[in-house]
Amino acid sequence: MGQLPIAPVGRIIKNAGAQRISDDAREALAKALEEIGEEIAASAVKLAKHAGRKTVKAEDIDLAFKKLY
Amino acid sequence: MGQLPIAPVGRIIKNAGAQRISDDAREALAKALEEIGEEIAASAVKLAKHAGRKTVKAEDIDLAFKKLY
Repeated sequence: MGQLPIAPVGRIIKNAGAQRISDDAREALAKALEEIGEEIAASAVKLAKHAGRKTVKAEDIDLAFKKLY
Repeated sequence: MGQLPIAPVGRIIKNAGAQRISDDAREALAKALEEIGEEIAASAVKLAKHAGRKTVKAEDIDLAFKKLY
């Protein structure tokens, strides 16, 4: 946890049309995206192993993303 | 697009147990998380307006996250 920086996540909310954003809203979105990222990454690691690779590639991320969301 | 920095997203994949990670995998996960973040943020902005607030709060993000995922 705590990998994603708060400021870029705040810009995503700003770009979505928010007039004002509370600090805890930025932190909540960063936490949510990090949880989702961890799920996608865990699935992608399994998919790479399943394909006999040590390297996680974009195709693993894309397939994990489609499977989960 | 292009809000989320690549390095922290790479650490999420590393922490998920990846032995090696291609650059395009980092970029793919950053892109996926940004798309998800944009969806959650757009929903949260609507929820804040619906509640008669100009400020997007954590409760808007949390409700948007639960609605969408």
